[in-house]
Amino acid sequence: MSRSTESADLRDNASPVAAALEFGPLNRLAGYQLRRAHSRFFSNFAESLAEYSVTPVQLGLLLMINHNPGVSQTALARAVGIERSTLGEFIDRFQDRKLVERRGSLVDRRSHALHLTIEGATFVKNVMPAVFAHEESVMSVLTPADQVTLVRLLAQIARD
Amino acid sequence: MSRSTESADLRDNASPVAAALEFGPLNRLAGYQLRRAHSRFFSNFAESLAEYSVTPVQLGLLLMINHNPGVSQTALARAVGIERSTLGEFIDRFQDRKLVERRGSLVDRRSHALHLTIEGATFVKNVMPAVFAHEESVMSVLTPADQVTLVRLLAQIARD
Repeated sequence: MSRSTESADLRDNASPVAAALEFGPLNRLAGYQLRRAHSRFFSNFAESLAEYSVTPVQLGLLLMINHNPGVSQTALARAVGIERSTLGEFIDRFQDRKLVERRGSLVDRRSHALHLTIEGATFVKNVMPAVFAHEESVMSVLTPADQVTLVRLLAQIARD
Repeated sequence: MSRSTESADLRDNASPVAAALEFGPLNRLAGYQLRRAHSRFFSNFAESLAEYSVTPVQLGLLLMINHNPGVSQTALARAVGIERSTLGEFIDRFQDRKLVERRGSLVDRRSHALHLTIEGATFVKNVMPAVFAHEESVMSVLTPADQVTLVRLLAQIARD
């Protein structure tokens, strides 16, 4: 169920009972707030980017290949924290969509160098305004200073 | 693959190529950092709480029932943002494990009032120290003030 449907449902059926629920220690648990914020952030990502049919993970991979032309699958898998076999499946699907191509690596003949195709580069260029618009719409509940702080603190958690 | 295995793998095979990858706009995208922090937070949750075999979502539901004895499935589903049918399946499994019981509601005869069993209350009491320890271990990369800030900003995003 999409977030907007869910919100409409909430509005129509909101009851004092639901509104008055106690969250106990949950409200103070960073893990709980992280899970709710994550789900809030991505629940309407697919909707916002419907015409591009790309998931957040796929988009991240395309951006990484765009900024690291010739990157190996091994290095890319490590950098984004995805298992190599899973990454291989992603790349297969990108190849089917003609967004990415595997070329022979110049440094390691056993590995493939990943490049965006011209279509892939155009795709990334076209999709980014929608990504930034989605980001802005979710983040607009925070002040600009708080937005910067949130990204900084999340990055500290994300880094090992 | 567990986070610890992944880290070991990184350490053993780290190459300058992987270390030097450019993240382009990803590092500034809150959505990207949120996804990475989320995955960092929950990758070792199952491990840390192995002896309790409980997921973050299950734990959140048990805490909500604990703090709202007699809550209806409808109100609980709304409060935590889970579809009613999905919640029903969770409650079925809690009943199988004798952690939760459905009693007739005093206010609405068509709906069930959810209560923790004595076993359920004991389970919650026993699991919480492990939850707080996991939370503390992940959050310890931040100063205490930053921990409070992060929870506050995430809650603002999570709230519609």
